[in-house]
Amino acid sequence: MVSAASAASGPALLAGELVERARRLRLVLTDCDGVLTDGGVYYAAEGEALRRFSVRDGMGVERLRESGIWTAIVTRERSPLVERRAAKLHLPYHFPGLQDKAAHLDAILRDTGLDTASLAYIGDDVNDLGIIAAVGERGLTAAPADAMPEVLEAVHYRCTAPGGSGAFRDFAEWILRLKREKEAP
Amino acid sequence: MVSAASAASGPALLAGELVERARRLRLVLTDCDGVLTDGGVYYAAEGEALRRFSVRDGMGVERLRESGIWTAIVTRERSPLVERRAAKLHLPYHFPGLQDKAAHLDAILRDTGLDTASLAYIGDDVNDLGIIAAVGERGLTAAPADAMPEVLEAVHYRCTAPGGSGAFRDFAEWILRLKREKEAP
Amino acid sequence: MVSAASAASGPALLAGELVERARRLRLVLTDCDGVLTDGGVYYAAEGEALRRFSVRDGMGVERLRESGIWTAIVTRERSPLVERRAAKLHLPYHFPGLQDKAAHLDAILRDTGLDTASLAYIGDDVNDLGIIAAVGERGLTAAPADAMPEVLEAVHYRCTAPGGSGAFRDFAEWILRLKREKEAP
Amino acid sequence: MVSAASAASGPALLAGELVERARRLRLVLTDCDGVLTDGGVYYAAEGEALRRFSVRDGMGVERLRESGIWTAIVTRERSPLVERRAAKLHLPYHFPGLQDKAAHLDAILRDTGLDTASLAYIGDDVNDLGIIAAVGERGLTAAPADAMPEVLEAVHYRCTAPGGSGAFRDFAEWILRLKREKEAP
Repeated sequence: MVSAASAASGPALLAGELVERARRLRLVLTDCDGVLTDGGVYYAAEGEALRRFSVRDGMGVERLRESGIWTAIVTRERSPLVERRAAKLHLPYHFPGLQDKAAHLDAILRDTGLDTASLAYIGDDVNDLGIIAAVGERGLTAAPADAMPEVLEAVHYRCTAPGGSGAFRDFAEWILRLKREKEAP
Repeated sequence: MVSAASAASGPALLAGELVERARRLRLVLTDCDGVLTDGGVYYAAEGEALRRFSVRDGMGVERLRESGIWTAIVTRERSPLVERRAAKLHLPYHFPGLQDKAAHLDAILRDTGLDTASLAYIGDDVNDLGIIAAVGERGLTAAPADAMPEVLEAVHYRCTAPGGSGAFRDFAEWILRLKREKEAP
Repeated sequence: MVSAASAASGPALLAGELVERARRLRLVLTDCDGVLTDGGVYYAAEGEALRRFSVRDGMGVERLRESGIWTAIVTRERSPLVERRAAKLHLPYHFPGLQDKAAHLDAILRDTGLDTASLAYIGDDVNDLGIIAAVGERGLTAAPADAMPEVLEAVHYRCTAPGGSGAFRDFAEWILRLKREKEAP
Repeated sequence: MVSAASAASGPALLAGELVERARRLRLVLTDCDGVLTDGGVYYAAEGEALRRFSVRDGMGVERLRESGIWTAIVTRERSPLVERRAAKLHLPYHFPGLQDKAAHLDAILRDTGLDTASLAYIGDDVNDLGIIAAVGERGLTAAPADAMPEVLEAVHYRCTAPGGSGAFRDFAEWILRLKREKEAP
């Protein structure tokens, strides 16, 4: 059984409720900088040149998809290199340009035809707190091990891996373990 | 209340004095290499090609600005890629080419119309000791967790994060917490 | 003597058996992402731009070769930059494009004229479990210190170094130490 | 006084002897990969593209020079990007293409007009053991914190910083502290 102790201190849920939410899950929304990357941006003389992603997170996207769960990146800024990473991973949804992510949650729900009970969200910084609160009411939320303290306190699951080094994969495996759980008798 | 224990051992200040200095603060001066970066420089066959910055520090710049505090980069060398990072963060002041940073403090004060009581400085290496001493008399000073030992001993605040991984953000949040402090009754 | 304690918990072998397998060894197969790299992929606006390898692993390839053992990279995807790294290290075999690595083991054995008792394999993720099981029956297997937990449990040797920071070199030195062992009297 | 405990276990020297050797020192020879870098090499589709150096090490080169001690890079392979880094730091000597570094020590001594009592060497891997033994007889030797175990045992000083993150600077500061020591009365 998945221990309730693996949930963060903030919005503690019983293990059975976590399992139920995981089973309803259809789409994982993920922040980019600080989750899929370690927050680093590499500058050349021409400006932003590189971001570093993790192959292991890519495997997490694949494994979720095999289990019927899609993944989408939700970022504040449009970045060609983030779009390239999304394309490589065949991510079906991509919502660039969101200054206020929570305010755009309605648009995401309308575009996808889903409700918040089918969503999960993983983010690392204070500008993720609004969407974490909104998704966390009925869905599942997580933060990388090195997220800002306020964010770690607001989520259901604290990853053991930091951003850019498998945090997303960690969240994905947690979801997949929850889905495999037997219903409590 | 912000504990005085969070101040470094060198120029210990009472918590009330730290709060007062934070409230007067108008401009944070920051070293680049070793503070906004981890000190790494990436070389290609053509020479210096990349430096790595942190998105989380960029959020620190934004949050300070919303609180009425500006940020400027003070570097020893002119570097096009540091200029690109400064432009991205909309940094209003940028002082390249300073071999002796302390000696140029007068120019900074004249250009900005500020006095040292409105300044903060964060740096990591021995060539920052002069400006740290000058700013630290009436303003606030800090160093990344992995700064040179002499620098860690000379500042008011030792960041818990190392350079390039949120040290600047850490300093910014410390300042913002100080500003929110109630005056001691 | 090489302690049996250095073997992982999964398929424990007596030290004498490890020595015998090391002496039969002719070819080390290595996963790329997460073993020769730390799993990071650097994206530019044009797509995948860089991967980071370790000079110390390159020295491991050389030292194995001086001892009569060849090395080959086994990857899921064809990548020009992985091919460049393989060329630099004069790797005689290279098998790109393997979705199911275990299924292609027969092709590797046919191309090289070897049997599994002459092989070793090092990998880090769940898609390596099939080939680890196949090679591990008669050959030697290993995983970087930061491999997925399931993989760490399935191998003969757990490296002390993580992927991209000398894990391959660590495995190579372990093999070379085993080869130098005296036969038990 | 510099504690003898800061010397490595291998060729232990009395503190007074260390001080004397530091005072005679004229030229520090440094390995590149694993010392000035963390051993990482970044590959693009066109081959080797980047290596990462440390600004803090560059400051170490400057500070040694101000104290009358020069620095030179000794590498196995000619690399345009290492040459660019050497040029940036105004390194007066550069010896690329040395497969057997110890065998080329005579050439270095002839070119510079120095003897081994004026030299120091810092390296990280087994191919540095020959030149470490040769220089270490009358000069000073060091290794980064993450050097191969055999190398850490062979040197006078073990850096607290790993390669690419200030190991060279650490060695430089140790030398400068030794030079400042008072002669034992």
